Amino acid sequence: MGMAPIAYVLWTKYLKQNPLNSKWINRDRFVLSNGHACALLYSLLYLSGHKEYTLDDLKSFRQLDSKTPGHPENHFPGVEVSTGPLGQGISNAVGLAIGEAHLAAHYNKPGFPVIDHYTYVFCGDGCLQEGISSEAGSLAGHLGLGKLIVFYDDNHITIDGETELSFTEDVLKRYEAYGWHVQHVKDGNHDVAGIAHALEAAQKVHNKPSIIKVTTTIGFGSAKQGTEAVHGNPLSKDDLANVKKQFGFDPAQAFVVPEDVKKVYDRTEAGKKAEAQWQEMLAKYAQEHKDLAAEFNRRVAKQLPAGWEDVLPKFTPKDAAVATRKSSQACILALGKVLPELMGGSADLNPSCFTYLDYSKDFQHHSPEGRNLRFGVREHAMSAVVNGLAAYGMFIPYGSTFLNFIGYAWGAVLLSALSGFRALFIMTHDSIGLGEDGPTHQAIEKLMLVRTTPNILLLRPADGNETAAAYITAIRQAHRPAVLALSRQNVPQLEGSSRDGALKGAYVLQDAEGGKPDVILTGSGSEVSLCVEAKQKLKDSLKVRVVSFPSWELFEEQSLEYREAVFVPGVPVVSIEAGSVTGWQKYAHASLGMTTFGASGPYQQVYKKFGLTGDNLAEKAKVAVAFYKQTPVPNLLRKPW
Amino acid sequence: MGMAPIAYVLWTKYLKQNPLNSKWINRDRFVLSNGHACALLYSLLYLSGHKEYTLDDLKSFRQLDSKTPGHPENHFPGVEVSTGPLGQGISNAVGLAIGEAHLAAHYNKPGFPVIDHYTYVFCGDGCLQEGISSEAGSLAGHLGLGKLIVFYDDNHITIDGETELSFTEDVLKRYEAYGWHVQHVKDGNHDVAGIAHALEAAQKVHNKPSIIKVTTTIGFGSAKQGTEAVHGNPLSKDDLANVKKQFGFDPAQAFVVPEDVKKVYDRTEAGKKAEAQWQEMLAKYAQEHKDLAAEFNRRVAKQLPAGWEDVLPKFTPKDAAVATRKSSQACILALGKVLPELMGGSADLNPSCFTYLDYSKDFQHHSPEGRNLRFGVREHAMSAVVNGLAAYGMFIPYGSTFLNFIGYAWGAVLLSALSGFRALFIMTHDSIGLGEDGPTHQAIEKLMLVRTTPNILLLRPADGNETAAAYITAIRQAHRPAVLALSRQNVPQLEGSSRDGALKGAYVLQDAEGGKPDVILTGSGSEVSLCVEAKQKLKDSLKVRVVSFPSWELFEEQSLEYREAVFVPGVPVVSIEAGSVTGWQKYAHASLGMTTFGASGPYQQVYKKFGLTGDNLAEKAKVAVAFYKQTPVPNLLRKPW
Repeated sequence: MGMAPIAYVLWTKYLKQNPLNSKWINRDRFVLSNGHACALLYSLLYLSGHKEYTLDDLKSFRQLDSKTPGHPENHFPGVEVSTGPLGQGISNAVGLAIGEAHLAAHYNKPGFPVIDHYTYVFCGDGCLQEGISSEAGSLAGHLGLGKLIVFYDDNHITIDGETELSFTEDVLKRYEAYGWHVQHVKDGNHDVAGIAHALEAAQKVHNKPSIIKVTTTIGFGSAKQGTEAVHGNPLSKDDLANVKKQFGFDPAQAFVVPEDVKKVYDRTEAGKKAEAQWQEMLAKYAQEHKDLAAEFNRRVAKQLPAGWEDVLPKFTPKDAAVATRKSSQACILALGKVLPELMGGSADLNPSCFTYLDYSKDFQHHSPEGRNLRFGVREHAMSAVVNGLAAYGMFIPYGSTFLNFIGYAWGAVLLSALSGFRALFIMTHDSIGLGEDGPTHQAIEKLMLVRTTPNILLLRPADGNETAAAYITAIRQAHRPAVLALSRQNVPQLEGSSRDGALKGAYVLQDAEGGKPDVILTGSGSEVSLCVEAKQKLKDSLKVRVVSFPSWELFEEQSLEYREAVFVPGVPVVSIEAGSVTGWQKYAHASLGMTTFGASGPYQQVYKKFGLTGDNLAEKAKVAVAFYKQTPVPNLLRKPW
Repeated sequence: MGMAPIAYVLWTKYLKQNPLNSKWINRDRFVLSNGHACALLYSLLYLSGHKEYTLDDLKSFRQLDSKTPGHPENHFPGVEVSTGPLGQGISNAVGLAIGEAHLAAHYNKPGFPVIDHYTYVFCGDGCLQEGISSEAGSLAGHLGLGKLIVFYDDNHITIDGETELSFTEDVLKRYEAYGWHVQHVKDGNHDVAGIAHALEAAQKVHNKPSIIKVTTTIGFGSAKQGTEAVHGNPLSKDDLANVKKQFGFDPAQAFVVPEDVKKVYDRTEAGKKAEAQWQEMLAKYAQEHKDLAAEFNRRVAKQLPAGWEDVLPKFTPKDAAVATRKSSQACILALGKVLPELMGGSADLNPSCFTYLDYSKDFQHHSPEGRNLRFGVREHAMSAVVNGLAAYGMFIPYGSTFLNFIGYAWGAVLLSALSGFRALFIMTHDSIGLGEDGPTHQAIEKLMLVRTTPNILLLRPADGNETAAAYITAIRQAHRPAVLALSRQNVPQLEGSSRDGALKGAYVLQDAEGGKPDVILTGSGSEVSLCVEAKQKLKDSLKVRVVSFPSWELFEEQSLEYREAVFVPGVPVVSIEAGSVTGWQKYAHASLGMTTFGASGPYQQVYKKFGLTGDNLAEKAKVAVAFYKQTPVPNLLRKPW
């Protein structure tokens, strides 16, 4: 209710959209960062003419399987990004605005502004208190994203009460310090002209993002306006009637939209016309700039160019041992040349994560054509920007840092999974193997964190070929992000390593000679070579199969037949992984791994300290084999359901 | 090297410490937020006279099991908090300063400033780019923490290169917007007097935290000074010799401290004297303010008052069904009265999380005696502030939000575990049971996240008695934080529910009648009552035992005998939990739970949608029993090791 005047101005007069095609690529992007106010968004979508929404949908607000859930979900038409967790939407919007600026620089030609639109955000105090929005705000100011316009609903109320209780900073001064253009509309309840004026002024500032603070009254019109009592609770029957009367509606009626209101809000004709004109321009563009237009259309359709996988490097056991972060560099450099949609960067760790595309520029205000994003030490905003680029729809975005610091970014990575984005989180230094930096930097629980989260892939390649497979997997997935967990330390190019095998999630890397194995050793990433070492040590005593297991999720999509061909029933499985042991009970009868935090020191010594060596694994394999001579080996792949 | 002049000024002239007792409660707190610069901290500890550190320790820098790991760890003397993950230290420092202000307000009496010290922070650009520090900075400004003094080492260099690449905001203006007192020392390489002057000016500002930007040259004195090449890499031999020569040292010598340098830095005598004077004052204080002094000393010694557990409420099955967040409220309100060290709050969710101590004030600038912290919508800073209070040593701090938003705070919660803090993370709305707010707010992977992390407890109580047990456990643990996962929805007070049982992590809530059970149903929190429902439904067909399982970690500390008495060998275990299924393979032969994200709707409908009902559990129990008639039931508690 408090934001209704801002919404009225933006949605009836300025927002470029075609309600009949909510996917039109050159639409303005609108992000409701304070997603809890989504009744407003659903109403606007309905009123502006999005036919997917009916009055019945509005009536099913927050009901199971409705189109109008408690917070906006991007699976529904007209909802650009899923919001609700505070600070995410405004940070996604930075990604959307980066996307716009980059595509405009790459595709627009004189007379052909094929990408040319604004990104608008509504947000409240909550979004601006979250650290992620500070990171994103600083980055947006640095990048001078002139087409990003934020409306800050300054209503002085949070769930707890007055913002005075905890939030008394000078918000506009802060944004000015970030390099934003700032304005204040003091009477957001009535000053519709002032809002429009500020919006137009913001549109004219091309070298800075804009924030317009609009002072409003929460629940404007209600008897309880201006208090936290209208933040989350429905109005009483009497109060509702009172509000309707005040604004000139019949209090006896509900869910009725008068014709004149419909007329003011309906954007169907205007939107149809706007897109038609744009399509016309695009057709001419396709004549004059054939290759660019073909690429543009390919990217809009989310198709990949033929043969893109062929550029990936192949490795043989004769190739030098290198860290998988290095193999990853070879992959991403190769892919970036054939996939212009690949765009991203690291959180100030280029010399460590190796994700910089050295043949492209930095994306900066004066070089928006660059594809390398310098995120700064801002992991959370980085991930939200990645999500914003993914939401834009013409990108395969990536962000990169040490695996342990995905913990700083989890709020955004989780939303990537929930939103079903194709996004790559390239996480290096993925274990105690980072060595000297010590336990504050060593991921323990992170591998299992990703595995226990729905709709996201954990890919932990053991060597170069598996790293290539990880990129193939991640990019093939249209609706699921992937976390690539990569080693700091060198790992050998393994005998038996297979791209096709890795694409299945797990495969027999090296089999036992002479029939059924006595034991199966399995692990992922840098620990697979320890399985190979242990097999070698055991060659005179046990028949050992080594299974490389880069991805649980992919393996779980294979047939039971395949899975039982890998983990043969009746054979004990011993796992080794430099991460939490808890969780491995799903696949292994016994496990080596971490049950404590790590330690600072040269990585070989750290591995030894925690028993993660080929020697120890060989010893433990014997123990497991002996143990399962006394008791049946349970089949972990067959359960009651 | 760049920060040496600041360190020289602070550590030789201002920092109040007693190197012979690094735990002296009234010492100044020093936090090296840019923990990667820890060679400086270790040198200062050694030079100032901390006898725990020898030259050999300095030589073992970043070596396994040394006292000088790659980043500061709070287990070592003189290291207040573990730093390295950027932004944490400066945010912990806000907690330390809150602690100081609160204790001073609570304990100091005219003539007896028993708590009266500063909290100093060194930080770099990285810390100030992280969102957590923005949250903490805004909060500190709001609270007017006058005794917090931050030195910002403005060296223009990050790992990637010039800060110009990604960080061009006006930092001091931003802090001014937060309400801080800001100063700039322009030549931090030489202007020692300027640094001292700024420090003294900052000390005199009592109503605002201070930030002093000191412009320095990274690697000052090195041939590579002012470049990213000196950020992480050691200097070359030649360059090292050159540096030593420049500063008047013998380039042939290493790890030699000239006598005059020792004299300047050694604080042993001054520190001894300072503490002795303070002890004298404390003795007099104990005479004049006997009760306060007794409480003060008890808190310093981290002892709990006798009988503190007795105040906790007890529940019987006749008591009304209430949400465990409500039972939690009864517990924390009771405990807060007998434990003045209990201090905390929520991230703007008091009306939802129920952690407000209504008999105490808000902690605000004008009421530092209050114990209720209004964190604002700042989950990450909240958790770091909780860690800071825990590090202070006289608090049992808590922070509170929805369980799903622990994902915003994980960077800090993880450090709480690593640091071994007694801290409570009271996380409500812990599953799809929150209903209408929908999947963006529903925790799926969070329970398993905590379980797979070392040195932290997940406590998910099923009802009131188990909630009381959760508080007992969390507060008894001196060196391990706890996450309390609490329901939004009402749960019955269960027949058989037991505080003692819950303290063991898992126990038989309701046993099968007439001998060995056919099946064991287990779960945690709000799903335990579904087990009870299923048992009821199966009463004519199967002998069912119900095991309530609030904490894996506690259960794992019990004897094998106890564990096998709970999960009887040979009986299939079926688990149900409204969280990730992956992970439950450790204890259950088959599981019901979540494999996707949740949904928005009334919670009963959402539970039904995902098959989490007593009916479905009863059906599945039959399937499990039938399945295990065909194949042996593996003993999950006995493994090869």
